[in-house]
Amino acid sequence: MAERIFNFSAGPAVLPEAVLKRAQDAIWDLDGSGIGVLEHSHRGKAVDAVWERTEERCRRLAGIPDRYRILFLQGGASLQFCMLPANFLPEDGSADYWNTGSWSKKAIAEARRYGEVHVAATSEDENFCYVPAEASYGAGPAYVHFTSNNTIFGTRFAEEPTPPAGAWLACDTSSDLFSRPIDLDRYGLVYAGALKNLGPACVTLVILRADLLDATARDLPTMLRYDTHAKQDSRYNTPPVFGVYVMGEVFAWLLERGGLEAVEKENEEKARIVYDAIDGSDFFRGTARTDSRSIMNITFRAPSEELEAEFVKQAAAAGLSGLKGHRSVGGMRASLYNAFPREGCVALVQFMKDFERKHG
Amino acid sequence: MAERIFNFSAGPAVLPEAVLKRAQDAIWDLDGSGIGVLEHSHRGKAVDAVWERTEERCRRLAGIPDRYRILFLQGGASLQFCMLPANFLPEDGSADYWNTGSWSKKAIAEARRYGEVHVAATSEDENFCYVPAEASYGAGPAYVHFTSNNTIFGTRFAEEPTPPAGAWLACDTSSDLFSRPIDLDRYGLVYAGALKNLGPACVTLVILRADLLDATARDLPTMLRYDTHAKQDSRYNTPPVFGVYVMGEVFAWLLERGGLEAVEKENEEKARIVYDAIDGSDFFRGTARTDSRSIMNITFRAPSEELEAEFVKQAAAAGLSGLKGHRSVGGMRASLYNAFPREGCVALVQFMKDFERKHG
Repeated sequence: MAERIFNFSAGPAVLPEAVLKRAQDAIWDLDGSGIGVLEHSHRGKAVDAVWERTEERCRRLAGIPDRYRILFLQGGASLQFCMLPANFLPEDGSADYWNTGSWSKKAIAEARRYGEVHVAATSEDENFCYVPAEASYGAGPAYVHFTSNNTIFGTRFAEEPTPPAGAWLACDTSSDLFSRPIDLDRYGLVYAGALKNLGPACVTLVILRADLLDATARDLPTMLRYDTHAKQDSRYNTPPVFGVYVMGEVFAWLLERGGLEAVEKENEEKARIVYDAIDGSDFFRGTARTDSRSIMNITFRAPSEELEAEFVKQAAAAGLSGLKGHRSVGGMRASLYNAFPREGCVALVQFMKDFERKHG
Repeated sequence: MAERIFNFSAGPAVLPEAVLKRAQDAIWDLDGSGIGVLEHSHRGKAVDAVWERTEERCRRLAGIPDRYRILFLQGGASLQFCMLPANFLPEDGSADYWNTGSWSKKAIAEARRYGEVHVAATSEDENFCYVPAEASYGAGPAYVHFTSNNTIFGTRFAEEPTPPAGAWLACDTSSDLFSRPIDLDRYGLVYAGALKNLGPACVTLVILRADLLDATARDLPTMLRYDTHAKQDSRYNTPPVFGVYVMGEVFAWLLERGGLEAVEKENEEKARIVYDAIDGSDFFRGTARTDSRSIMNITFRAPSEELEAEFVKQAAAAGLSGLKGHRSVGGMRASLYNAFPREGCVALVQFMKDFERKHG
């Protein structure tokens, strides 16, 4: 098999090699059925088994109680930006949104089509380099939405915000779900495009409180209603079976590693290796405020744009791929999702030191 | 590698084994990049190359001129049932729909949320066992929608209908796109969930006339607008990269087989093998009217429901999987998509003869 390189991509992103090997086998023959995972009827027993084990592993991994439903949808976080308010923002009500980056802004723009949106807090004044400590909520929001980790700006909520009484939390967790434990109790709905920590880009994981399904805010196209998918166990229409299969194998891999607390420790250790190198250097500097730093996406700059371009180019030639930062921030970004190996962080730091010695 | 069985599933369905092997390789390492197809940034050069070759092969395979756009979307035909009228059924206008089965009915129900829908023809009076020869259109429809192949009822349009002047054809081709040549000239928009003839369930192929993108009928959520996806080359948000990759390999496989005319001949030959067995038997009978028979999905019954259950059970034990008919029709259904091998048809017919001898 060909040699693989270190993949720092922000998403789609590196997946565990053990999972990739299982996926290769399943494409030819799923669970000894004589038919591959791409070719099985979504109503047959082989896919039933994939559904059951994926949901069971998900519940075990994150301690998800029965009062929450788990849905496997399509369309990524971008479709959730619309589905969430379409289903749950009442025509005469309001919702509060934290504005902590590009994805928050997109979520706010879609929600405004459906009702009143109050921005509870924003860090746009400093190009989203931090997560605000405080929020000022509007009157009686149905829910409070936030983006737990801001992939582009390299920031995250260290803890989830506390919503006002009567409101529940809604969260875009696309870039950090299952990178650390999550306490679902205060959440009504959590969603994540799978493409960073969970699996391929074709599936979206939604975890929502079952009682919310009793009241949808307005008449909607069938495919945009959460209750359509909940009633049919995420098989109202043909679901992305392969994506669910891979996600289930990623959950098994996370459980084998000791679960979310163990994974969080590994992730903190990986991030510390890179942040220590940045903080110990006069050449590189981090762009996120230290109290808001993400452990998934590490954003940093070099002294000039020319040097940054050279850094990204030379790193790629050395087998360190995907380090170019997003244009909104510039510079470099190292994404260190669950499946990214510690050795890759060590290799990056060594490369940074060599680069600084040559160009510093 | 494990032995594979004959998969008569109606969808998701059998894919070419050569394509599955390429997908296995690409999951580990796409095109020698050192990164797998599930893990590549959708904005990077490796995915650019997948996009370019998939679109080029699609155009070459079906002779698609530049005035049509090709989009890779998510949500299957079910989301198209809503997107098509949301974008193109004017609030003060109407559309005509042919009602030839369960999927047509779903498309009609979603369209009615957006405007006036006139049913041009229906075969519901005889449980959709035929495709009507004639239609009676309403006044000045924006478009005429039909379902080219009815997976559940085993029928198809032998030729596309002729829309009234000023209207264009819209077609759900999920179960027969690229099983035969298609003359796009009369079509405005064609869509197909990939899961039957084209690839995995996670991607939807949409081919539409570029000029239609100039006028969207109403304000819509960003993700439901065709022009959102067209402007961003199907990468407004993270697309189902793996699904597009596999579809591109299926297109290459179809081109290697000689293109759509050659593939149609193979499909007609495969279907004839099974239809001849049905027509030559006093035990089995087809459910679709002969002038409307599909060459993709062959629906047939045995003398009693008990015998049908026995047939499906014994067939599965003999390595002929997925032959149970849809509950709306009962009996058996053999789906013979492009990738289904001729040997499987021969094996089925032999099994039918043996079964008739024992139980007839």
